Amino acid sequence: MAFYLKCKNLDISTGGKSIILLNEKEAGYYGMNPGDKVTLSWSKKKKIVATVDLSAKAVKPGEVGLFEEVWRKKEIEDGAIVEAVLESRPLSIETLKKKMLGKPVSYEEIYSVIHDIAEGRLGEVETTYYAMSSFVKPYSDQELYYVAKAMAETGEKFNLKVKVVDKHSVGGLAGNRITPIVVAIVASCGVYIPKTSSRAITSPAGTADVMEVLCPVQFSLPQIREIIKKTKACLVWGGGLHMAPADDKIIKVCRPLALESFDKMIVSILAKKVATGVDYLVIDIPVGSTCKVSHMKDAKKIGKKFVMLGKKFGMKVQVVITRANEPVGRGIGPALEARDVLRVLQQHKYRPLDLELKAVKLAGILLELKGYCRKGKGRKIAEEQIKNGKAWNKLNQIIVAQGGKKDINSEEVMQEIQRYEIHAKKSGAIYSINNRAINEVCMNLGAPLDKYSGIHTHVNFGDKVKKGQKLFTMYTSNEERLKLGILAANQNIIFHIK
Amino acid sequence: MAFYLKCKNLDISTGGKSIILLNEKEAGYYGMNPGDKVTLSWSKKKKIVATVDLSAKAVKPGEVGLFEEVWRKKEIEDGAIVEAVLESRPLSIETLKKKMLGKPVSYEEIYSVIHDIAEGRLGEVETTYYAMSSFVKPYSDQELYYVAKAMAETGEKFNLKVKVVDKHSVGGLAGNRITPIVVAIVASCGVYIPKTSSRAITSPAGTADVMEVLCPVQFSLPQIREIIKKTKACLVWGGGLHMAPADDKIIKVCRPLALESFDKMIVSILAKKVATGVDYLVIDIPVGSTCKVSHMKDAKKIGKKFVMLGKKFGMKVQVVITRANEPVGRGIGPALEARDVLRVLQQHKYRPLDLELKAVKLAGILLELKGYCRKGKGRKIAEEQIKNGKAWNKLNQIIVAQGGKKDINSEEVMQEIQRYEIHAKKSGAIYSINNRAINEVCMNLGAPLDKYSGIHTHVNFGDKVKKGQKLFTMYTSNEERLKLGILAANQNIIFHIK
Repeated sequence: MAFYLKCKNLDISTGGKSIILLNEKEAGYYGMNPGDKVTLSWSKKKKIVATVDLSAKAVKPGEVGLFEEVWRKKEIEDGAIVEAVLESRPLSIETLKKKMLGKPVSYEEIYSVIHDIAEGRLGEVETTYYAMSSFVKPYSDQELYYVAKAMAETGEKFNLKVKVVDKHSVGGLAGNRITPIVVAIVASCGVYIPKTSSRAITSPAGTADVMEVLCPVQFSLPQIREIIKKTKACLVWGGGLHMAPADDKIIKVCRPLALESFDKMIVSILAKKVATGVDYLVIDIPVGSTCKVSHMKDAKKIGKKFVMLGKKFGMKVQVVITRANEPVGRGIGPALEARDVLRVLQQHKYRPLDLELKAVKLAGILLELKGYCRKGKGRKIAEEQIKNGKAWNKLNQIIVAQGGKKDINSEEVMQEIQRYEIHAKKSGAIYSINNRAINEVCMNLGAPLDKYSGIHTHVNFGDKVKKGQKLFTMYTSNEERLKLGILAANQNIIFHIK
Repeated sequence: MAFYLKCKNLDISTGGKSIILLNEKEAGYYGMNPGDKVTLSWSKKKKIVATVDLSAKAVKPGEVGLFEEVWRKKEIEDGAIVEAVLESRPLSIETLKKKMLGKPVSYEEIYSVIHDIAEGRLGEVETTYYAMSSFVKPYSDQELYYVAKAMAETGEKFNLKVKVVDKHSVGGLAGNRITPIVVAIVASCGVYIPKTSSRAITSPAGTADVMEVLCPVQFSLPQIREIIKKTKACLVWGGGLHMAPADDKIIKVCRPLALESFDKMIVSILAKKVATGVDYLVIDIPVGSTCKVSHMKDAKKIGKKFVMLGKKFGMKVQVVITRANEPVGRGIGPALEARDVLRVLQQHKYRPLDLELKAVKLAGILLELKGYCRKGKGRKIAEEQIKNGKAWNKLNQIIVAQGGKKDINSEEVMQEIQRYEIHAKKSGAIYSINNRAINEVCMNLGAPLDKYSGIHTHVNFGDKVKKGQKLFTMYTSNEERLKLGILAANQNIIFHIK
């Protein structure tokens, strides 16, 4: 349809963008929406394509508002009559329609959707259409690649111009705080490992919460680049960096139904890795009844997809699947986990060996993957970097570069204000450990908001225990919350003794 | 999971609702969202189930805010410790999840979704999930029935306690203004026909816009009941009456992609009819390349579904499918269509016979369907009601009941301020008529905002015309818009002469 409109030349500039203003009410009748492309023609020679914006007052029905760049450049007189033809809906809208009908789409099309989501040109309703479209028909591998690529391309990137390694743990396992240790080991070998992490979402602590006990974690991209320049690494909070920004908006609309597919999770993770410029990636998938991935079969499928999609980006991905029966490390809660990390790197006599072992294993695989050493040699080197103190030196350096105190001793990390011990009610062996109940007790104690709250376990899966033996200690800054934690601890069987 | 919280007794009442207040940040970690059901227990005896609401400031982490009705009734002391267990997500959220996975759902489940959409407990994101769920798997007929029923049940109803008839035209045909004539005929026979109509959405006029030229159309439900009491009919705007309110919210989230399925359209229409309490319904489906339904096959399918779903509500539905080659009536635009309506009812010599014929036909079918007369007799009776002036008396009565002027003459309806005639450029026969172009010219002239704008056609499909013969006249209140209309008219071939 063609509509004829009287030009109203506005004394406003849009900074070079080709935008026109239509009367809100009239545009509705014309079926023109914000973001639509419209061709304006004054004669055969004068023609522009512009994007529609609406105004309730600045233009009357029958008028079109022209910004300075348009009327100056095209020499349009105020009051001239122009023909307006709806050229097309934004490509992103057309693409969403296609996906709703289950049709395949190109990179250009996916890019338009992800770009418009990132820029806020598509709102929450349209983002919901995108988020759900995979329920109409699952995206092909090629399309998943397109999504991850577009997410990375539409946000900030690290652009480090060096080979970069990274690790990622698929969540759900309490206390699985290997990241700072792996980063320290790998960077101490001279390999770049710039790590961005998240805060806790529905758990007692995220890596960023743990690191924050030792130093600030919130920086701008240029600041982060400085830290990496100094230390070949960083351990910062990934939020607010505008990396793969569409992802955050998509996650937001997924929250109400909490329906996250594994495909979506993989794409989210990869997009951030691509933006970080990762070349070598180890994916750690703990499998257990209380983990995000509870079946070995799913873990294998997820692993395969990571490798396959990574390849499309030229990223070498190795997947490590482990059965998870219990938390890794002894502490659960920000400061308690930070203490475990320092105890390992400072080789404290009470260090959690399982945490050390897992970190050494993953760091070794990363070093091999990167080609730093031959296959089978990585673990030994990783171990050595802890033993000779180089890994701790590296973390110390990172902490200082991020504005933390130098030479923090593991034993000065925790500030106990309130503590309470839970003892075995009978003798026997630890038959099973309820990870979910551990999280619950920690959160009743105030984690992650209260950094000094959480629990420290004294026994492991399979251990023999005697009646009255200490099972775990609860910590919190707040007397009131200690009561709440005790209630939660008494309500749940955390260590099942048989 | 169980969380333990300290009770904070608030000096606020919620009007009897069982709601608790959690700290916004902490509830996030606990995975508790507004609307979730939580069981609070103080002891084995004291227990309540309450709905979660969030606050950033009124309650601190570790606290739960109790409103007066809760702590008074349960005799809870300020500071008491309570166990909070997440009982369930709202049924509507669980139902949306089921639909996203393509599973069938019960009436109770659909009702929860439609109810929560209507009440605003589900926001735009969740409403979008609902609107799209039929793309994952089409709803069964039984589910479509549930949706229409739930939409009607969750809004206002007419509750007239008499047998009620109605007609509905599936849109897209210019000038198809039979409604006021059908209502006048049917009501003049003593049959109840309370009609709610819409305004133009993307067309030059809706029935409500046309009626508004003659009298006010915006009333409250009690006012409408008064009008019906007096006249057995009404011709009012259906918006703002809170009838099938979920539908408006669903339509809103469908707008960005403009993906409306026929199923959704049928359910929307039926829901409003059920809320109006319609017992006998005639559905008019014009089929043509520029109508909403462009294929005969689709029209038949839609018709069948209307009959089938209507039956489930005890509603007798008859479908009338007509081929649409040209606008019905001579005028297109609010006042020009109102003049056509009055010309028919006042039997003016220039009245549009096609409009009269179509209205008589549909009114006749409605009278037969209702059992007012034997099959085959309706048309004759409808004709008679026009001829003997009773139909006009009835419309006159409705106009007055709605606050309009008495005895409006058809020839005083239009106020011409600007007019312009378009003539045939060659001799021949009218080979085709471009409905879409007619709408376009009318809207360029200012319809529907300018009530006195639009066009009046002088020739019909198939007519022989001579070069220079008047084809149509354009009207508008505004000189500027006349220019725009002329441009649009010259750009399009509206009457194709061959």
